[in-house]
Amino acid sequence: MQTLVGTKKGQIYHLEINRPKQLNAMSGQLFQDFKAAVDIINQTDDVRVVVLTGRGKHFCAGLDLKEAPQMFQFPDELDQARRSIRIYDLIKDWQFAMTSLSRIRVPVIVGIQGYCLGGGIDLITSADIRYCSEDANFSIKEIDIGMAADIGTLQRLGVQNANTSLFRELAYTGRIFNAQEALQLGLVSKVVKSDQLNDEIFKLAETIASKSPVGCYTIKSIVTREQNLDSHLDVMARTNMAMLFTNDMATAITASMTKGKAEFPKL
Amino acid sequence: MQTLVGTKKGQIYHLEINRPKQLNAMSGQLFQDFKAAVDIINQTDDVRVVVLTGRGKHFCAGLDLKEAPQMFQFPDELDQARRSIRIYDLIKDWQFAMTSLSRIRVPVIVGIQGYCLGGGIDLITSADIRYCSEDANFSIKEIDIGMAADIGTLQRLGVQNANTSLFRELAYTGRIFNAQEALQLGLVSKVVKSDQLNDEIFKLAETIASKSPVGCYTIKSIVTREQNLDSHLDVMARTNMAMLFTNDMATAITASMTKGKAEFPKL
Amino acid sequence: MQTLVGTKKGQIYHLEINRPKQLNAMSGQLFQDFKAAVDIINQTDDVRVVVLTGRGKHFCAGLDLKEAPQMFQFPDELDQARRSIRIYDLIKDWQFAMTSLSRIRVPVIVGIQGYCLGGGIDLITSADIRYCSEDANFSIKEIDIGMAADIGTLQRLGVQNANTSLFRELAYTGRIFNAQEALQLGLVSKVVKSDQLNDEIFKLAETIASKSPVGCYTIKSIVTREQNLDSHLDVMARTNMAMLFTNDMATAITASMTKGKAEFPKL
Amino acid sequence: MQTLVGTKKGQIYHLEINRPKQLNAMSGQLFQDFKAAVDIINQTDDVRVVVLTGRGKHFCAGLDLKEAPQMFQFPDELDQARRSIRIYDLIKDWQFAMTSLSRIRVPVIVGIQGYCLGGGIDLITSADIRYCSEDANFSIKEIDIGMAADIGTLQRLGVQNANTSLFRELAYTGRIFNAQEALQLGLVSKVVKSDQLNDEIFKLAETIASKSPVGCYTIKSIVTREQNLDSHLDVMARTNMAMLFTNDMATAITASMTKGKAEFPKL
Amino acid sequence: MQTLVGTKKGQIYHLEINRPKQLNAMSGQLFQDFKAAVDIINQTDDVRVVVLTGRGKHFCAGLDLKEAPQMFQFPDELDQARRSIRIYDLIKDWQFAMTSLSRIRVPVIVGIQGYCLGGGIDLITSADIRYCSEDANFSIKEIDIGMAADIGTLQRLGVQNANTSLFRELAYTGRIFNAQEALQLGLVSKVVKSDQLNDEIFKLAETIASKSPVGCYTIKSIVTREQNLDSHLDVMARTNMAMLFTNDMATAITASMTKGKAEFPKL
Amino acid sequence: MQTLVGTKKGQIYHLEINRPKQLNAMSGQLFQDFKAAVDIINQTDDVRVVVLTGRGKHFCAGLDLKEAPQMFQFPDELDQARRSIRIYDLIKDWQFAMTSLSRIRVPVIVGIQGYCLGGGIDLITSADIRYCSEDANFSIKEIDIGMAADIGTLQRLGVQNANTSLFRELAYTGRIFNAQEALQLGLVSKVVKSDQLNDEIFKLAETIASKSPVGCYTIKSIVTREQNLDSHLDVMARTNMAMLFTNDMATAITASMTKGKAEFPKL
Repeated sequence: MQTLVGTKKGQIYHLEINRPKQLNAMSGQLFQDFKAAVDIINQTDDVRVVVLTGRGKHFCAGLDLKEAPQMFQFPDELDQARRSIRIYDLIKDWQFAMTSLSRIRVPVIVGIQGYCLGGGIDLITSADIRYCSEDANFSIKEIDIGMAADIGTLQRLGVQNANTSLFRELAYTGRIFNAQEALQLGLVSKVVKSDQLNDEIFKLAETIASKSPVGCYTIKSIVTREQNLDSHLDVMARTNMAMLFTNDMATAITASMTKGKAEFPKL
Repeated sequence: MQTLVGTKKGQIYHLEINRPKQLNAMSGQLFQDFKAAVDIINQTDDVRVVVLTGRGKHFCAGLDLKEAPQMFQFPDELDQARRSIRIYDLIKDWQFAMTSLSRIRVPVIVGIQGYCLGGGIDLITSADIRYCSEDANFSIKEIDIGMAADIGTLQRLGVQNANTSLFRELAYTGRIFNAQEALQLGLVSKVVKSDQLNDEIFKLAETIASKSPVGCYTIKSIVTREQNLDSHLDVMARTNMAMLFTNDMATAITASMTKGKAEFPKL
Repeated sequence: MQTLVGTKKGQIYHLEINRPKQLNAMSGQLFQDFKAAVDIINQTDDVRVVVLTGRGKHFCAGLDLKEAPQMFQFPDELDQARRSIRIYDLIKDWQFAMTSLSRIRVPVIVGIQGYCLGGGIDLITSADIRYCSEDANFSIKEIDIGMAADIGTLQRLGVQNANTSLFRELAYTGRIFNAQEALQLGLVSKVVKSDQLNDEIFKLAETIASKSPVGCYTIKSIVTREQNLDSHLDVMARTNMAMLFTNDMATAITASMTKGKAEFPKL
Repeated sequence: MQTLVGTKKGQIYHLEINRPKQLNAMSGQLFQDFKAAVDIINQTDDVRVVVLTGRGKHFCAGLDLKEAPQMFQFPDELDQARRSIRIYDLIKDWQFAMTSLSRIRVPVIVGIQGYCLGGGIDLITSADIRYCSEDANFSIKEIDIGMAADIGTLQRLGVQNANTSLFRELAYTGRIFNAQEALQLGLVSKVVKSDQLNDEIFKLAETIASKSPVGCYTIKSIVTREQNLDSHLDVMARTNMAMLFTNDMATAITASMTKGKAEFPKL
Repeated sequence: MQTLVGTKKGQIYHLEINRPKQLNAMSGQLFQDFKAAVDIINQTDDVRVVVLTGRGKHFCAGLDLKEAPQMFQFPDELDQARRSIRIYDLIKDWQFAMTSLSRIRVPVIVGIQGYCLGGGIDLITSADIRYCSEDANFSIKEIDIGMAADIGTLQRLGVQNANTSLFRELAYTGRIFNAQEALQLGLVSKVVKSDQLNDEIFKLAETIASKSPVGCYTIKSIVTREQNLDSHLDVMARTNMAMLFTNDMATAITASMTKGKAEFPKL
Repeated sequence: MQTLVGTKKGQIYHLEINRPKQLNAMSGQLFQDFKAAVDIINQTDDVRVVVLTGRGKHFCAGLDLKEAPQMFQFPDELDQARRSIRIYDLIKDWQFAMTSLSRIRVPVIVGIQGYCLGGGIDLITSADIRYCSEDANFSIKEIDIGMAADIGTLQRLGVQNANTSLFRELAYTGRIFNAQEALQLGLVSKVVKSDQLNDEIFKLAETIASKSPVGCYTIKSIVTREQNLDSHLDVMARTNMAMLFTNDMATAITASMTKGKAEFPKL
C-alpha cells in the first residue's frame, strides 16, 4: 500500500489516506491499495473495528483528474465496442475497489473533514458509520466532469435515500453541501466540532471494539446484503460503456480547470 | 394538450397545469395530456430541463370528482369480473399517465404552492426535484374517498420512505400536512418563501441546464430504475379491481361534499 | 392470552402487554400470545383499528433473559447440526410472532413510554404507526448479549432506513437513544409529552376508525408487502443457526448482570 | 384428519387421500387435513421420508364442486369489495394448504394413478418427487370451470417450466394429457407400469430413508426456497378477488355437469 | 398495417405476416405494424384467440438487413454517447414491438413453417403457444451478423430454458436446428406434418375460443408476468448501446452476403 | 497451475484437469488453480473459446475426500460460531472457484467421459456448453457424504431445471445416472460416441472461434447474469455454516469407504 497507511492501535485498525498534497485525490494506485487493504485487515490478528480518515486538511478531493486522460487512450485498431469493453472492465475494477470497506469483516467508521468530493462520497457510502466535522463540505461532483457517479454513490445513497428530491438535486447540480445537509441526507449520522472529530470517532471505535466480535460480525454480514447492489452497479457500468465516450467530459474538465463556462451540444 | 400549457424558455421547458378554476384538479383529459407531454418534450429541440408548476393559487386539488361517477358506469350485461377488467385498464392507464414525469428524459423540477392533494402527490412523486412554498398544504387524500392511493404515492413515496410511521399515518388519516412535514417526509427538498418559489426553481433549472446533457441523461436513466416499481403498481391495480367496488366510496364522497359524517359498515 | 390484555372500546381494540413487574419483558408465552392475538382480533366483530401499549412505566424491556438458558439445553446425543435445526425453528417461530402486528388486518398504533429495548424494537417495527413520550428510551440491545437483532429490527428498520450510518451505529453499540433520535431515525413519527401519550394515540385511533374500512384494509394490504422481508428474515435465521452457538453470549450476559466488563476472544 | 390416513412404516410415513367414492376430490375438510398433516408428520418421531398416494382407482379428481356454491354465499349486506376480501382469505387459506407438502421437512414422494385433475396438480407440484403409472391422466382442469389455476399450478409448474408453449396449451385448453406428456412437461420424473407403481415409490422411499437426515433436510431447505413463490401466489389471489365473480363459472360448471356446450359472453 | 393482414373468422383473429417476397423479413414498418396490431385486436369486438402465421413458404427470415445500414447513419456532429442514446431508443422500440404478442389480452397461437430465423424467434417467444411443421428450420441467427439477440430471445428463451447447454450452443453458433430440436428446446410444443399445420392450429384456436374468456384472460394476465423480463430487456439494450458499434457487424454481414469467410480482430 | 494444464491451439484454449491417478478428484489446489486459470485465460492474447476436459478415463470423481478431514480441524479454543465463520469462508472460496468457468469472458465447452461425480457436476454447471460420451456416468454424490451440493449444483441446475421431480430424486438419492438421463435433465446438450467426443467438441470450438468475438462476448455477458445466483450461493453457504457440523458426514464417509451400511440418528 503506497497511498494508504495502516496502524494497529489495540484492537482498532487505523487506515489513513496519505496523499495530502493531492488533497487525497484518488489515483489508480489508491484503488489498488483499497483492495489490498481488505486482505491485510481481514488477516491481521484480532482487529475489532476500523477507523478511516484522510491526512491533511481534506478527506478526499475525488478522482485524480490528472490520470483521467490515460483511461481513454486505446490502440488505434480498437473499434468502439472493444474500447467499451476495456472501459467496462475498468469501471468494474473501480467499483470493486470502492466496495472494499464493506468487505472488511468488522465495522468501519469514517471521519470526514474539509472536502469530500465525487469519488470520496462513493467511498464512504460503503462504510458502516460516518461522522463529519462542522467544516466538512461535500459534492456529488461527477456531473461537473460530464458523467454520473458510477462507482457507488448513485447505487447506494440513491437507492436507499428517503429524500429522493434532495438526493437528485445534489446529483444533477453537483453543488457543495455542508455538514448539516449531509446529516439531513443521511450521509453522516453526526456532526462534530472540528477539533473533536478524532476523539469522537476513536471513542466510538473503542465502544464497538469492546462488544462481542461474533455479534458485530453477524450484524455486518446481514446489513451489507444490500438489495440488488451488485445488479445496480453492473447496470451502471454497462450504461457507462457508452456514456463515457462523450466530448462533454473534455469540455467540462477544461471549463473546470480554466474556470470558464462550458458549452455543451444538445443531445 | 388542453389542460397543460408548454413554453420553451431557452433550454428550459415550462409545463403548467392550466385548470385554475378547478384548482387544477385532474380530469381524464389531464391524464391524456400528461402522456402527450412526454412525447412533445422529448421531441422538442434541445430541452435540458423541465419545470412543472400549476397556474392559480393551488398546485393541484387531486382527482376531479365530478368525473368519478362515469368511471363506474358499465353496460348492464357485464358481470363483476368484466367490470373489474375495465377498471384495471383504467387504473393502468392513469398509472402510466402519472409516471410521465419520469419518462421525460431530462430532469423535472416541480414547484408547489397552495394545495397539493391526492393525485397531486401521486404526480409529483414521479418528478426528480420538488420545492414548495411555505404556504403549501398536502394531503394523501384518497382515504377520504374510501380508497388507497393507487397511482403512485403508495408505490413510490411509501416504498422508499424511511419514516414508515409518518407515511402510514398520513395515508390512513388523509390529514393535511404542511411544508415542514413534507420536508421531514422527504416529499420536498426545500421550503421557500411564497414569493420566491418561482425564482428558486428557475434558478435551479438554469443551473441544471448548464450541465452536461449526457451526464444528466445518464443520472436520470439510472435513478428512475426504481426497485420493482412496475410490479408494485401492477399489484395495486389488481387489488383495486375488487376494492373500488365498494359503497364506501359513494358514502365517503357524499359525506365529503355535504360536510357530513360518513358511516361505513364493518368489513 | 396470559401476558396480553385485550379490550374492545367502540371500534378500537386496545391490546396491552401485561407483565409490568418484568418491565413487560418478552417471555416465550408472550410470543405465543401475540400469535393468538392476531386471530382473536381479526375475528372480533367490527374492529377498525388497534392500539398497543405496555402497562406500567416501561413499554418493553426486551427478551426475558431468564428464559434464555433453556433455549440452549439440548439432549446430549444431538450433534451441532441437529441443535442448529432446533434453534432455526425457534427463531422462525419468534420471527413469526414478531410479525403479528402486520398480520392484523386493520392499522395498528403503538404508544411507547419508558424503556423500549431489544425485542421491543423488533416488535414495534411491524406496527403501522409509532408515537412515543418524551421520556422514552430505546436500545437495539442485542449486541449486548453477543448477538444480532434477528427477529425484525435489522430486517425492517435496517433495510428501509435512509440514515444507514445512524442505524448501524445504534446496532453495533447498543447504546440508549432518546425520543428525538428515534424520530430522526424514523422509528417514531411523533414525540408527545408523557401525560398526553394516551390521549394522542387514542385520538389518532378514533380518526382512523372513522375512515372507510375498505380503504384502510387496502392501504394496509399494500404497505405491508415489504420488499423481500420473508427472505431477509430467513437469511437471518439461517445465519444465527451457527452464530448463536458462541460463548460470547454467556460472557456478555454475565457481564451485563454483574455490571462487569466482558472480555471476548478474537474471531 | 378425516380425509387423510397416515401410517408409519419404519421410517417411512405413508399418507393416503381417503375419499375413494368421491375420486378423492378436494373438500374443504381435505384442505384443513393437509395443513394438520404437516404438524403431525413433523412431530412424529423419526420420519425420514413421506409417501403420498390416493386410495381407489384415481389419485384425485380436483376440487369437490359440490362445495363450490357455498363459497359464494355471502350476507346480502356485503358490497363487492367486502365479498372479495372473504374470497381472498379463502384462496390464501387454500394456497397455504396446497403448500403443505413443501413444509414437511423431509422429502415427499407422490405416486399417481388414474385421474389427477385440477387441484390434484396444484397439490403434487409442491411435492419433491412425482412418479405416475402408465394409465395416469392429467388435466389443468380449472379453465373448464371458468377460472385460472390459483392455488399452485400456474405459480410453480408455470414459472419454472421450460416448455412454456406446452404448459400454456394445457392451461388454456384444460385437455387431458397422459403419462408421457406429463414426463415431457416435467410434471413427473418416471412413468411406471400400473402394478409396479407402489413398489417403485416405496423402493425409492427406502433409498432416501437410508441417507443422512441432515443431508436430506439441508437439500429440502434449499430447493424449496422457490423464486418469489409467495409473491406469485399473492398476486394470483388478488387477481381472483375480482375474477371469480363471473357468471362464466356457473355457465361452465352447468355445461360440464349436463355435458352441454357452454356459451360465454364476450369480455 | 402495411405488412400485416388481419382477418376475423368467428371469434378467431387471424394475423398474417405479409412480405412473402422478402421471406417475411422484419422491416421497420413491420415493427410498427405489430405495435398497431395490439390496439386493433384488443379493441376488436369479441376476439377470443389470435392465430399468427406467415404467408409464403417461410415464417420469417429475421431482420431485413437492407434496412440495417440506415440505423447507423447519424449526423456527423454527434459524439459516441449521443449516438448510443439513439441506438438505445431504437432497441427499446423494437423490444416493445417484439413484446406485442404478450400484450394482446387473449391467447396467441403461432404456426411456423420453413425458416424462422433471428428476429423471427424473438417474435414467437412472446406468443403463448407455438406449433411448427416438420420442415421448419430455426436459427438464433444474430451471432452471424456479429451481435447478440437483443429483442427477446436471450431474455425469454434463455432465462427460462432448462437446457442451458443446448440454448447457449445455438446462440453462440447460430446453426440451423430443426423441428425436433425446437421441441426439445421447448421452443415449440408440437411438430405437425406440413400439410396439417394450418388445420391443427385452427383446431386448437377453436378449442380455446370455446372456453371462458374470463378464465383465459386471467391465465394470460398471470403467465405473462415473467420474472424481471423488463429489467432483462433493459440491461440488454444498455449493453448494446456500446456493443453494436463494432466493425464485426459490417464484416459479418459482408461475409454472409458474399458467402465468404469473415475474419474478425481479437477483443 | 499444478493440477490444470493449459494449451493454446490457434484461438482455442484447451484446459485439462490433470490428476488422472486420483480420477481428477478436486483437491484444494485444484480450486486455487481454477481461480488462477480465469486470469491466465482472460489475459492470454486472442483466445476465442475454451475447451475443458479431464485427462484419463474419468472426467472428475468429485471432492478429494482425503483432504476433507483437514477442513474440520480447528484450534481448540474456537467456539462453534467461530468455527462456522471459517467454514463459511471456505465454502465461499470454493463457490468462487466453481464459478470460474462463467468468469472466463469467452464461451467454455466441456467434454465429459467416464465418471462425473459430486463437485464435478458443480463445476460443469458453470460452463456454457456440455457434451458427454455415451459411457459417461453422473451422480449428485454429496448426499452420500451426508451433505447438500453447496458449490453450484443446487443453485444452478436446481433453480433453472424444469423437471424438478427428476432433479430432486437425483439430489436426494445420489444415484448414478447415465448420459441419456443427463440429456433429459438438461445437464448436457449432446451425447456422443466415446471415440468421437474429442472431435465433436473441438469442431464445435472451431465454429465458435470463427464467430464475431464481440457477438460472443455480448451473449456471454448476458446469459451469465443468472437470476439471484450470488444470493442463492450465499444462502447455501450460511446454511452449511451449521449443517456441515454433523456426525452424519463421518458416518457416511466411513460407510462409503468400508462399503458398509450407514446408520444415522434421527433429526
